[in-house]
Amino acid sequence: MSKLESVVKEIAEEMRARPDRGEVATYIPELAGVDAGQFGIAVVDAAGNVAAGGDCDTSFLIQSISKVFTLTLALGKVGDRLWKRVGREPSGSPFNSIVQLENERGIPRNPFINAGAIAVTDVILSGHQPREALGEILQFVRFLADDPSIVIDEAVAASEQRTGFRNRALANYMKAFGVLENPVDYTLGVYFHHCAIAMTCRQLAMAGRFLALSGMNPATGHRIVHAERARRINALMLTCGHYDGSGEFAYLVGLPGKSGVGGGILVVAPGKASIVVWSPGLDVSGNSHLGRIALETLTKRMGWSVFGA
Amino acid sequence: MSKLESVVKEIAEEMRARPDRGEVATYIPELAGVDAGQFGIAVVDAAGNVAAGGDCDTSFLIQSISKVFTLTLALGKVGDRLWKRVGREPSGSPFNSIVQLENERGIPRNPFINAGAIAVTDVILSGHQPREALGEILQFVRFLADDPSIVIDEAVAASEQRTGFRNRALANYMKAFGVLENPVDYTLGVYFHHCAIAMTCRQLAMAGRFLALSGMNPATGHRIVHAERARRINALMLTCGHYDGSGEFAYLVGLPGKSGVGGGILVVAPGKASIVVWSPGLDVSGNSHLGRIALETLTKRMGWSVFGA
Amino acid sequence: MSKLESVVKEIAEEMRARPDRGEVATYIPELAGVDAGQFGIAVVDAAGNVAAGGDCDTSFLIQSISKVFTLTLALGKVGDRLWKRVGREPSGSPFNSIVQLENERGIPRNPFINAGAIAVTDVILSGHQPREALGEILQFVRFLADDPSIVIDEAVAASEQRTGFRNRALANYMKAFGVLENPVDYTLGVYFHHCAIAMTCRQLAMAGRFLALSGMNPATGHRIVHAERARRINALMLTCGHYDGSGEFAYLVGLPGKSGVGGGILVVAPGKASIVVWSPGLDVSGNSHLGRIALETLTKRMGWSVFGA
Amino acid sequence: MSKLESVVKEIAEEMRARPDRGEVATYIPELAGVDAGQFGIAVVDAAGNVAAGGDCDTSFLIQSISKVFTLTLALGKVGDRLWKRVGREPSGSPFNSIVQLENERGIPRNPFINAGAIAVTDVILSGHQPREALGEILQFVRFLADDPSIVIDEAVAASEQRTGFRNRALANYMKAFGVLENPVDYTLGVYFHHCAIAMTCRQLAMAGRFLALSGMNPATGHRIVHAERARRINALMLTCGHYDGSGEFAYLVGLPGKSGVGGGILVVAPGKASIVVWSPGLDVSGNSHLGRIALETLTKRMGWSVFGA
Repeated sequence: MSKLESVVKEIAEEMRARPDRGEVATYIPELAGVDAGQFGIAVVDAAGNVAAGGDCDTSFLIQSISKVFTLTLALGKVGDRLWKRVGREPSGSPFNSIVQLENERGIPRNPFINAGAIAVTDVILSGHQPREALGEILQFVRFLADDPSIVIDEAVAASEQRTGFRNRALANYMKAFGVLENPVDYTLGVYFHHCAIAMTCRQLAMAGRFLALSGMNPATGHRIVHAERARRINALMLTCGHYDGSGEFAYLVGLPGKSGVGGGILVVAPGKASIVVWSPGLDVSGNSHLGRIALETLTKRMGWSVFGA
Repeated sequence: MSKLESVVKEIAEEMRARPDRGEVATYIPELAGVDAGQFGIAVVDAAGNVAAGGDCDTSFLIQSISKVFTLTLALGKVGDRLWKRVGREPSGSPFNSIVQLENERGIPRNPFINAGAIAVTDVILSGHQPREALGEILQFVRFLADDPSIVIDEAVAASEQRTGFRNRALANYMKAFGVLENPVDYTLGVYFHHCAIAMTCRQLAMAGRFLALSGMNPATGHRIVHAERARRINALMLTCGHYDGSGEFAYLVGLPGKSGVGGGILVVAPGKASIVVWSPGLDVSGNSHLGRIALETLTKRMGWSVFGA
Repeated sequence: MSKLESVVKEIAEEMRARPDRGEVATYIPELAGVDAGQFGIAVVDAAGNVAAGGDCDTSFLIQSISKVFTLTLALGKVGDRLWKRVGREPSGSPFNSIVQLENERGIPRNPFINAGAIAVTDVILSGHQPREALGEILQFVRFLADDPSIVIDEAVAASEQRTGFRNRALANYMKAFGVLENPVDYTLGVYFHHCAIAMTCRQLAMAGRFLALSGMNPATGHRIVHAERARRINALMLTCGHYDGSGEFAYLVGLPGKSGVGGGILVVAPGKASIVVWSPGLDVSGNSHLGRIALETLTKRMGWSVFGA
Repeated sequence: MSKLESVVKEIAEEMRARPDRGEVATYIPELAGVDAGQFGIAVVDAAGNVAAGGDCDTSFLIQSISKVFTLTLALGKVGDRLWKRVGREPSGSPFNSIVQLENERGIPRNPFINAGAIAVTDVILSGHQPREALGEILQFVRFLADDPSIVIDEAVAASEQRTGFRNRALANYMKAFGVLENPVDYTLGVYFHHCAIAMTCRQLAMAGRFLALSGMNPATGHRIVHAERARRINALMLTCGHYDGSGEFAYLVGLPGKSGVGGGILVVAPGKASIVVWSPGLDVSGNSHLGRIALETLTKRMGWSVFGA
């Protein structure tokens, strides 16, 4: 058993034993009903070895983690012109704050807060029908994970559509400033659907490999993005990937990552590994409670922090 | 000539040839009078080799770069209790914003915005006279740089004292919330003085080695801080080291760094090097214009980004 | 000719002669096309005498002035329970700011900013179909003006529906906090339509009489509201009736009033008169430029300021 | 006994009987020690008749009510040039908020929030020594009240100086924007002292007469200010006199007024009376709890609302 395998095994056991679980998100019934007792982990290293444990093969909603994939797609589509529509700075405020938009003429601070991800979705949508854009996003995720079985949870997308008033406010607000090009309902439709993609830790870790490996997918030999773009997406994940808890995550874990309200976190150890943890209970900042602890432990034991040995 | 030496030489020449220089800070006469045509660079690698070029031996005001050293000192003094007085998140607003303090009960967002650095200075001051606290800071910087000749520019400190109304507002505001323990004038006196430390690129790069080398000073064999603390200070520099331009710096340069209004930038390539660039002309975010370009070039040519090869 | 008649005549002539007109609102074509050269005035005194001049019989869009009538209706429907859904304080920010909503949990500051008026419309709508609610509002305005010919400009309502992204953002934002009870599209539909009521200065001055006369309509002998409610609506008009220019209006004119982006202003001189001026060119705060000047002149010549002789 | 006398007598008795008193301010010992059981009222009508009751001859700290007198003095000194240094709009935020200053380049929203009153004091100070400026203010208040025995409570002024960090922050912040001309310590010294003037209800009601009587002091026949200026000061008191509770006060009481943290409220019934109530217990907005209730009762019984009969 490799060091990585034994560390992953230890962590899966330690997490299973912990009584503290955080609070499961309750704003839609599909999330509220998830069992908080679950914990999964999957790590794919540079050589393609997979170490996984716990509920690593249970599907969960990737939610905001999808924003990493839509950002990659939008950059592929319009390149640096994307940065006219969205910024690259940490927001200094909660994930769904509208204050910043008012102060900065409707330009969201970064592609990982909700407003920014909606603007990115709008870029992918332009020139397409919603169904086509959504198909493109799903195909891209399946391609990255090398797994055509990945699907969208339509019931969740429908729930988000019905209750997502704050996102609807953000989108209309950006529309008022001309930041969105497409009809608000179209853009939001695609956004709510790509947030409802369901994946396992193992699938998601496979999908994240290209960010750890300078833009390459080593299994297939495909270049997904140039090395510089992979570095830059990682930089954005580090400074902005955890809403108003990004500084804390960098301080404690020391790796670029993106969390989702479903309890998943995708983390990149550049040159070393693609990592996914999942546990549905969240901390006060809305990030997976056990997930964050597991990542802190993993980074320390493997010596993977980007900030030094 | 090593690769590093030739890259540093190239950069020094390229920067000297550029016509664009940015704007020198003018809020005090001592900064306004500095020649914008200067550019210096110094890099100390893990083995202790120094590559330097341009005006690398000209003293400049380190200004906010001193906040890295005061943070290190304060953590040494009170450890994690420091985080009751200051946060660890990017601010999402300019370096001297007071809005965030009002919304968050006087607790500054991080130790690198002005309010946060003033709170850190207050921690160092507690239990001492201002003169003693300042002596301790200066001794620490001299010790890190292994150079007892480093001094404070008293005329600059006096200018800052006379005109620093916004910092005085920040300090009184924190005092109103009980975040500062000492008399406001004492804390500000120490703060204005440590910002007025003058150093060369070469001296500053030597002083920053411990952050690149897991907390060790290899020249002397002294451990300055534990490895984990060095990593964490680096994490804070990456997420918060450039005020509201921190995301951009991470995106373009890909290394932890701290800039000062005097035109210096201290950057850490973990495990690889301590880097200082200096050029007095600033960009719109208040960071050295040529300095940022030089660092972007250096990181790319050396392949030093923490975000991947 | 009474003093009032000659003052109104003078003002109509003075305004016609002025070269400065302000800027006509351009956010919908129906407003952008209005001739900026127009000026109308109508004053109904306590005895029912009408003094009118200029384009006093030309219809214009009353826009936000309708908020006075919807507030009156909503108070009639739910009384002081209305104040659980909307505040009574000046906003200290522009008419369509969303920042305040985020800081105050979706409760708009007062019934005259857009968010507040949308919340008031939602109260009127509850228990009804949009068509019924709109019918009730229109009937109420016709009853107050004693003129069944008043209609809604459907083309304008349609334009507002198509372009009103900021109001849609405000409404969704309040909905996210549970401040709105009805479907956002229903509430906004009614809101956009009642803002598109078209009236002449003369009709509008008739409709405002009850506020000047302790809640009575002297023509018909009907009591519209209790005297205390009339006083309180007047108080709200004075402190909040002109968005972030309310302090200035009170300072210069000294009477409660409500302006609309169509260039109309309804003003109440308690115990003395109901006054309407209209001129489509707006000042930087979005209030009728000539209208404000005409009111300043009228108040001064008639000695009608509530703040003293 | 006149109607006014019997109404005042009733109110004094009703207030004495109420068990609810609000909370006495505790931020300085001199306020914290005041007996919350006290209530005083004094009304001077247009003819000079005085109706008073309760603790109407007990001195209390006028605190922010002094801002009415300093505004009058500053307008006398520089006229409308004052409005380059301070605005005329309600603040929409608490009395000591600093956020607004950051957003509006250091210009306070109105002369009655702390920042605005400090800017007004700075105008009075210009060209004088602090002692002279303070003397001028005290002389003016004595002249208005026709009572040379009025003094400043030096112990209170000293307490405020020692603990007024938030006001010191506001002043330094304005100084950073160039809004204050004099040394911050000088301006604050005068400000803290004029807030520490001690007066009785009777003295204060006498001092406020000129605002009720078109700028005249009928006792002496002196014109204090032009009628228009008196109206305008009243307008500012109505829209801005109670910090973020100004809308509520206008809604409930319907008269211009200015409250102080010592529990006093000066109210103007234009053309009719100058009114002062005092009771040290404050409501959540920092205004005298019994004072506000007493004023609501008085206005209703006397029919004095400016908003209609």
